[in-house]
Amino acid sequence: MATTDREREAMRRALTLARNGPRGLNPQVGAVLLSPAGDVLAEGWHRGAGTPHAEVDALSQLTPEAVRGATAVVTLEPCNHSGRTGPCADALIAAGVTRVVYAVTDPGRASAGGGAHLRTAGVDVESGVLEEEGRALLNSWLTVQQLGRPHVTVKWAQSLDGRGAADDGSSQWITGPQARADVHARRSAADAIIVGTGTLLADDPALTARQPDGSLYERQPRPVIIGTRATPQEAQVRRHPLPFIQDEGDDLPDLLDRLRELGIHRVFIEGGPSVASSFVRANLVDEVLIYLAPTLLGGSRVALADIGVETIAQQRRLAVSSVTSLGDDLLVLAHPTHTEQEN
Amino acid sequence: MATTDREREAMRRALTLARNGPRGLNPQVGAVLLSPAGDVLAEGWHRGAGTPHAEVDALSQLTPEAVRGATAVVTLEPCNHSGRTGPCADALIAAGVTRVVYAVTDPGRASAGGGAHLRTAGVDVESGVLEEEGRALLNSWLTVQQLGRPHVTVKWAQSLDGRGAADDGSSQWITGPQARADVHARRSAADAIIVGTGTLLADDPALTARQPDGSLYERQPRPVIIGTRATPQEAQVRRHPLPFIQDEGDDLPDLLDRLRELGIHRVFIEGGPSVASSFVRANLVDEVLIYLAPTLLGGSRVALADIGVETIAQQRRLAVSSVTSLGDDLLVLAHPTHTEQEN
Ligand SMILES: NC(=O)c1ccc[n+]([C@@H]2O[C@H](COP(=O)([O-])OP(=O)(O)OC[C@H]3O[C@@H](n4cnc5c(N)ncnc54)[C@H](OP(=O)(O)O)[C@@H]3O)[C@@H](O)[C@H]2O)c1
Ligand SMILES: NC(=O)c1ccc[n+]([C@@H]2O[C@H](COP(=O)([O-])OP(=O)(O)OC[C@H]3O[C@@H](n4cnc5c(N)ncnc54)[C@H](OP(=O)(O)O)[C@@H]3O)[C@@H](O)[C@H]2O)c1
Repeated sequence: MATTDREREAMRRALTLARNGPRGLNPQVGAVLLSPAGDVLAEGWHRGAGTPHAEVDALSQLTPEAVRGATAVVTLEPCNHSGRTGPCADALIAAGVTRVVYAVTDPGRASAGGGAHLRTAGVDVESGVLEEEGRALLNSWLTVQQLGRPHVTVKWAQSLDGRGAADDGSSQWITGPQARADVHARRSAADAIIVGTGTLLADDPALTARQPDGSLYERQPRPVIIGTRATPQEAQVRRHPLPFIQDEGDDLPDLLDRLRELGIHRVFIEGGPSVASSFVRANLVDEVLIYLAPTLLGGSRVALADIGVETIAQQRRLAVSSVTSLGDDLLVLAHPTHTEQEN
Repeated sequence: MATTDREREAMRRALTLARNGPRGLNPQVGAVLLSPAGDVLAEGWHRGAGTPHAEVDALSQLTPEAVRGATAVVTLEPCNHSGRTGPCADALIAAGVTRVVYAVTDPGRASAGGGAHLRTAGVDVESGVLEEEGRALLNSWLTVQQLGRPHVTVKWAQSLDGRGAADDGSSQWITGPQARADVHARRSAADAIIVGTGTLLADDPALTARQPDGSLYERQPRPVIIGTRATPQEAQVRRHPLPFIQDEGDDLPDLLDRLRELGIHRVFIEGGPSVASSFVRANLVDEVLIYLAPTLLGGSRVALADIGVETIAQQRRLAVSSVTSLGDDLLVLAHPTHTEQEN
């Protein structure tokens, strides 16, 4: 059966409801229950990890009689796994819902398959309704489901010949103001920003996302320091609006998994060279941002160090998506052409 | 007095005559002598170092009476210095030429000033006639006059992170076929190609300019090897269509001067890292070509080594003229923003 105007209208409403929930570990999901005549019976949304899923939230507002024969319009495929709340597909079947319309198929490794399960139980299922809007809403949560970990961007600034600093360590203003503004905008779009203790102790970075006038962006990344050396009492990162996380950095997949559990979808790695190299070596990188300054430095301070490539066959090929001029600098945005994890 | 149609026609003829002479140490110059009525009295061109300049060549074909009151139309400003042939400006004055029309002002350090000298002697002088065509003809010779040495391009291929090879030295096909074809086309446009003995012994390069099908370009650069180690008997460079030059490389300005005396206007430096770094360090570079392969290598084989930059204030800033896609690779073409010589 094709979707009705009433169902598409209900989907639009469900997408709006979904936004009431928090962005984080769990997806933002909205649901609307319609009577066989197409009238709205109940609305629901997911309020975050440990609380009822959107469709169950809506079901809970009705008597069993009122639900029988209803259509559930949900922004995400009803889940099929018993998490803290039990599978939604089973709840819908048990409640006597006879039709389910959803926007986005669940790409999750454990939770997917709800649509097929509903069909097997005789429920009429329609997927892909307002899918684009649904995907836009879920965005980085979908990426995390697909990758099984947060999305990782590694960024560094270098001279054309691949140096991050001059031999004495000085590097102030290799890149210009437009490149730096671009970095801050991308920081603001990330959920966490990682640096090593080497950079922390050398540069004392604030790890905030700042507008060109110095004021803070509304959205700030969670600062994450990796390394065993202590973060000094006077370190600027202690004045970050969000509390910093420190981790030894000896198990990067595990670190990413713990960040994922904190609802972090996008991680921005800002160095230094040792930390950036470790992520590249471990094949944990989804996106590489290289800010190329039009200058030559030579010398020993390479922007990327040992990434485990001994011979040319082991090179880490990238696909360049774009090369953008930012003032005098160039931004090369690239993606590894294969990113299997080694672990 | 404005130039006449007859004079412009004579200039076109002089430009054609100039091409009869050889490209090399001396400029290609042509001259036409016109009677006061505008008829062609004589034609001349410069046949190369040690032979009469074009205007003297034309004068020599006429009796002193026939020249008196004539107009000399020359593609280059008559010279003002006593080289092997004596200053042309004086020869024209002595011959009783009353008007001189030329295309291009001589930018030479020693030879310039002929126009002013003629004017002082009461000769009517008109410059800049068909100047663009004149400059196009003289092209790299003008550059050599301005620089006081051949034009130097340094080229290298690197991974995005600035490595020329993997740690074991393997580097075959970092860049793709389009990038390699571009290098060969540029080699063919150069007059000489320089490599260090390190590269010679490691890679045994042919140093020829080849079409994608492997056939030789008609124009080949002169191969130049720098270093004290001997060129092996079986080295491919010994089969180059032009005989190779070997130089110790201990005095780069002097080497360039000797190449200039051989009529070499454009030098293409193809490495390796030590040689490229030496030219950059000595501020002897006019153009940098970096072929950037979309790959990461890390490790120790940097494409550019020590260029004498100890602190960021000493960085060698470049102005990027273009960034071009060549297959999967990028070509960054850049110019040092200051190129004073240190010597
Ligand atoms: N060009 C750029 O874009 C850029 C960006 C950032 C920094 N920098 C420069 O880079 C320099 C610092 O770089 P760096 O390489 O010395 O230090 P780093 O990469 O910032 O930090 C390295 C330290 O991080 C800790 N760590 C924890 N887990 C790690 C892991 N998995 N892999 C690697 N390290 C791990 C270790 O410290 P513990 O001993 O404490 O365990 C290690 O010594 C500074 O001079 C800074 O200015 C440049
Ligand atoms: N990525 C690229 O585009 C690229 C291009 C070319 C080569 N390569 C690679 O680079 C490697 C060789 O590089 P390399 O740095 O060892 O050798 P190199 O730069 O080719 O040659 C260095 C040698 O040249 C001689 N030399 C003479 N004058 C010099 C001067 N003014 N400055 C520096 N050297 C001078 C010295 O040899 P003597 O001891 O004989 O005097 C010196 O050891 C090879 O593995 C090759 O494959 C890469």
